[in-house]
Amino acid sequence: MASGMAITLDDLVKRFGGEVAGDGAHAVGSLAPLDKAGPGQLAFLANQKYLPQVETTRAGAVLISPADLEKVTNRAGSNFIVTPNPYAYFARVAQAFIDLATPKPVPGVHPSASIDPAAKVAASAVIGPHVTVEAGAVVGERVKLDAGVVVGRGVKLGDDVHLYPNVTVYHGCKLGARVIVHAGAVIGADGFGFAPDFTGEGDARTGSWVKIPQVGAVDIADDVEIGANTTIDRGAMADTVIEECVKIDNLVQIGHNCRIGAYTVVAGCAGIAGSTNIGKHCMIGGAVGIAGHVTLADYVIVTAQSGVSKSLTKPGMYTSAFPAVPHADWNKSAAIMRNLDKMRERIKALETALAGAPRREGESGT
Amino acid sequence: MASGMAITLDDLVKRFGGEVAGDGAHAVGSLAPLDKAGPGQLAFLANQKYLPQVETTRAGAVLISPADLEKVTNRAGSNFIVTPNPYAYFARVAQAFIDLATPKPVPGVHPSASIDPAAKVAASAVIGPHVTVEAGAVVGERVKLDAGVVVGRGVKLGDDVHLYPNVTVYHGCKLGARVIVHAGAVIGADGFGFAPDFTGEGDARTGSWVKIPQVGAVDIADDVEIGANTTIDRGAMADTVIEECVKIDNLVQIGHNCRIGAYTVVAGCAGIAGSTNIGKHCMIGGAVGIAGHVTLADYVIVTAQSGVSKSLTKPGMYTSAFPAVPHADWNKSAAIMRNLDKMRERIKALETALAGAPRREGESGT
Amino acid sequence: MASGMAITLDDLVKRFGGEVAGDGAHAVGSLAPLDKAGPGQLAFLANQKYLPQVETTRAGAVLISPADLEKVTNRAGSNFIVTPNPYAYFARVAQAFIDLATPKPVPGVHPSASIDPAAKVAASAVIGPHVTVEAGAVVGERVKLDAGVVVGRGVKLGDDVHLYPNVTVYHGCKLGARVIVHAGAVIGADGFGFAPDFTGEGDARTGSWVKIPQVGAVDIADDVEIGANTTIDRGAMADTVIEECVKIDNLVQIGHNCRIGAYTVVAGCAGIAGSTNIGKHCMIGGAVGIAGHVTLADYVIVTAQSGVSKSLTKPGMYTSAFPAVPHADWNKSAAIMRNLDKMRERIKALETALAGAPRREGESGT
Repeated sequence: MASGMAITLDDLVKRFGGEVAGDGAHAVGSLAPLDKAGPGQLAFLANQKYLPQVETTRAGAVLISPADLEKVTNRAGSNFIVTPNPYAYFARVAQAFIDLATPKPVPGVHPSASIDPAAKVAASAVIGPHVTVEAGAVVGERVKLDAGVVVGRGVKLGDDVHLYPNVTVYHGCKLGARVIVHAGAVIGADGFGFAPDFTGEGDARTGSWVKIPQVGAVDIADDVEIGANTTIDRGAMADTVIEECVKIDNLVQIGHNCRIGAYTVVAGCAGIAGSTNIGKHCMIGGAVGIAGHVTLADYVIVTAQSGVSKSLTKPGMYTSAFPAVPHADWNKSAAIMRNLDKMRERIKALETALAGAPRREGESGT
Repeated sequence: MASGMAITLDDLVKRFGGEVAGDGAHAVGSLAPLDKAGPGQLAFLANQKYLPQVETTRAGAVLISPADLEKVTNRAGSNFIVTPNPYAYFARVAQAFIDLATPKPVPGVHPSASIDPAAKVAASAVIGPHVTVEAGAVVGERVKLDAGVVVGRGVKLGDDVHLYPNVTVYHGCKLGARVIVHAGAVIGADGFGFAPDFTGEGDARTGSWVKIPQVGAVDIADDVEIGANTTIDRGAMADTVIEECVKIDNLVQIGHNCRIGAYTVVAGCAGIAGSTNIGKHCMIGGAVGIAGHVTLADYVIVTAQSGVSKSLTKPGMYTSAFPAVPHADWNKSAAIMRNLDKMRERIKALETALAGAPRREGESGT
Repeated sequence: MASGMAITLDDLVKRFGGEVAGDGAHAVGSLAPLDKAGPGQLAFLANQKYLPQVETTRAGAVLISPADLEKVTNRAGSNFIVTPNPYAYFARVAQAFIDLATPKPVPGVHPSASIDPAAKVAASAVIGPHVTVEAGAVVGERVKLDAGVVVGRGVKLGDDVHLYPNVTVYHGCKLGARVIVHAGAVIGADGFGFAPDFTGEGDARTGSWVKIPQVGAVDIADDVEIGANTTIDRGAMADTVIEECVKIDNLVQIGHNCRIGAYTVVAGCAGIAGSTNIGKHCMIGGAVGIAGHVTLADYVIVTAQSGVSKSLTKPGMYTSAFPAVPHADWNKSAAIMRNLDKMRERIKALETALAGAPRREGESGT
C-alpha cells in the first residue's frame, strides 16, 4: 500500500468501530502479518495459534477480540483495537487503505466507447475503452465499466456496480447495487433447452432439436460478487435469481431458472443445473455438481467435488468425493468395488452355511 | 412478449403444421402455462400430469397430441392445435413471437468495427461495435456479430450465424449455417500438445516441453449451438469436427481432434480430452469427463459427473458418480472402501475355515 | 503448410541439430505422417508400433532415434535425420514451417487500440484492434496483443509474449518472456476471500460477508503457456506464482496464492484452490480438483477427475476416480457401497460365530 498515508487509531475506531486499548494517537499506514509488522503497521489476531506472536510483535497496533485480549499478559507498550471480529475489521481497513492508494477513476465516457443514444448513463459513471452499452440500458451512479464490457439492451445496473474487462451482460438482466463481476463472466446467455423432435430409431432416426426460447432474464440482488469467466444463464420463462450478498467464484456455471439464496457462497468450477433452488447461507464447495430441479435447504454445506442428485432438506454437511490415494491401491479397491454384489453373495452364503448348521445354533448359546 | 400482436390458429397451422380442433379464427398473441394462460394466450400439454389442467384452463388454445386430446372429455368452448409434438411446436411458436417482439437489427457495419479490407462480409450481415474481422475471413448472409467478437484470418461463417459478444474464432475455422455461439466462447485455440524433451532424473532433470504446432482447425457443421465460455480446440494435424445439430452447453472443454457426432448434446462443465470420437445422438451429462483417444458408440448416455476412461462400444446409459450423503456417513463408507481388499481377505478366510471343516461338508448335505 | 518453401536436410541439421543419414541435399517443404508422406515431406518415428512403416514410407526423410535406426534393415533410397528425440525435433521443425507460412505481423499499434500515454510499448510490438493498455504497463519487444486484449495498470509483459484475443490481465501482474495466453483467459482477478461477519443463528442470522482485499498479483515466469478461458487469481497479500515452462490447458482455475512448480502441466478443467503449492514436473490430469493449503511433492501425477484433499509428500501416481460402467451395475454397487459398514458388521458376526465355536478351533488344527 502506498506509503505516506497514515491514520490514528482514534480515527480508525471513529470510522470502523471498536475501542482503543493503548495510545489512540498512534498512527498506522498499512497492514501486515503479526510476525512482519512494524511500528507504522496494523496487524490482526484471528486464529488462536498466533496468540504468542501478539506478545512479541513490533506492530503499531493489533486488532483483537475482547476474549483474546484477556489472554495477553504482557501489554506493555502495545496498542490494540478491540473488536468482536478482528478479521472482518482487518478486511474493511485494508479496503480503505487500497481506496486511498488507488488512482481515482475520472467519471466520464472513454471516446472509444459505444453508448447507444437510447441508453441512460449516470454522469458519475466511469466508462472505459471499447465498452458497448445498448439501447434502453440504465447505468447507475458511480458504476465502473472496464474495457471491452458489453451491456445489452434494457439492462439495469444499480449504483456502484463494477464490471471488470470483457464482461458480457445479455439484454434485460438486472444487477443490484455494488455488484462486482470479474473479467470474462457472462450474465444472461440462453439457458440450455431444446425440445426433441425426432422420429424413428437408431440409424433411421430423423428430425432435430428445437430450441426453447429463453425469455426470462437474470435478476441479481445487491452486494453479489461473481468470479472471472463464470456463466449465469437467463431463465426460460421466469428469471434466474441470485439473492443478496451471494458470492460466486470463478468458472462456475449456473443454469436457467436457478435461485441462489442470500449469503450463499459457491466455490470455483461448481456447476448447478437448471431450475435448482439453493437455500440461504449455503456453502457449495469447489467443483461440486448439483442436478437440476432439486432444492437445498438453508445452511447446507456440500464439500468439494461432491455431486447432489436429490433435494437435501436438512441443513448440514454432505459429501460424495474420495481423496486420491496411490494409483495401485485405488485400482485394487475399485476392482473390488465393481464386484461388491459378489462379495455380498459370498457373505450371504457364509451366513446360510453357518445358520444351517445345527451346532451353530448351539454355539450362539455358549 | 410484446402485446398488440396476435395470430389466428388457422394462420399458426398454415405456418407450423398441425390441425385446429375448435375455432380456427381465434387469435393468440403470447404463450403461457396451462394454469396461467388467458383467452389471448396459447398453452401446451407435454406432460400427462397436467392433463386435468386442460379441462380447466382459460387458455385461448392448447397445443396437444392426438392421443392426449382423446382423453379430454370436456372440450366445450376450448380450442386446440393437434400436433404429435406439442413441446417442439410450442418452441417454434415461441421463437416466432420473440422474433416479432425483438427489434430488427439493421444490416451494416458499426463504425467502430475493424474489418480487414481482405475480408468478405455480406451486405446483409450485422456487425456490432468493436468487432474485428481479419484478412481472408468470409462472413455469410444475415450473420450477426455482436460487440467485441473477433473473427480470425480465413475463418468461414455460414449464413445466419450468430456470434454473441466477445466470442473469439481463431484463424482458419469454419462454422456452418445457423450456428449460434454464446458470449466468451473460444473456437480454435491451440490444442494442448507438448513433446517432452528432458534428460536426467529428479533434481538433475534438464530440458523443456516443446510445443507441438496445432495446424488443424475446427470444422463446425450447420445448426450447432455452443454455450458461453465454452472452448473447442483446433486440431494438431487434422481438424476438430462438430457435426450438425450438436448442442453444447456452457463451460465445456473439447480437446483437439475430437469428433462429436450429429445431434449429440453435451451439458455444462463437461470436458472431453483430445482425439476422442463421440457418436451421434449421445447425451453427455454435466461435468462428465471423457478421456482422450476413446470412442463412444451412437446413443450412449453418460450421467452427470461420471468419468469415461475407455471406449463404450454399446448404446446405453453409463455412470460412475455417487450422490452426496451426510458427511459422517460418507466418511465411514469411504474408510471401509479404502480397505475393501482386507474385507475380501476376511471373507476368504471365513470361506476357507468353513470349507476346511469336515462337519461343514456334512452341513451342506443336511 | 504453404507450398513452394523447401529446406535441405543439411540445412535442417545446421539449425536444429541431429545428423543426416542419406542424402543431405534432399529438400523437404512440409511434414506428414509416415503412411501419408511423399518425397517432399518429412515424417517422424516416435512410437515403436509404426517401425514397419519406416520401411515402406515414401517420405523424403524420416526423423528417427539412433536405436530405432538400427532396427531398420532396408534403408535403400531412404534419408534420415538421426536425433535422440524425434518427436520434439518434429515439433520444432513444424513450428519453423508454420512461421514461414504465417504472414508476418507488422509492428505497430492499430489505430483503434487505446494505449495510455503513461504506458511503455516497445516499437517492435504488434498491438491489434480494440486493445487497451493502461497506465504504467510495460510491453516488451515483439509482444503480440490480439484484438480486444486488456492489459491493466502497471502490468509487465516480457519479450515475445503473445496474448490471444480478449485476454484480460489485471493491474500489477507480471508475465515473463515468451508467455502465451489463449483467448478469454483472465490473469489476476481477485482471489475468493471473504470474512464472515454474522451474528445469530438460523433465521435470526444477520450480518454480511466482508471482502478481503486482494493486494497481491500474479507472477508468471518465462515460457509458460495458458489455455483459453483459464483463470488465475491474484494473491491476497503475496503473489500467486507460476514458475517457468508450466503448461496449463483450457478452463483451469488456479486460486490465490498458489505456486505451480516449473515444468508442471495442468490439463483442462482442473481446479486448484487457494494457497496450494504444487511441485515441479508434476502432471495434473483433466478435471482434477485440489484442495487449498496443501502441498504436492515434485513429480506427482494425479489422474483425471481425481480429488486431492491432503498433501502428497511422495512422487508417484495418485487416483480417486471411477470409470463409468453400465448404469444399472453402478447403481447396484453404489447401494452396497452406502452400506459397507453393515457388510463389515456381518463379516464380524461371522468371524465371531466361527471363532466362538469350539470345533472351529479344532478345525484350524486339522
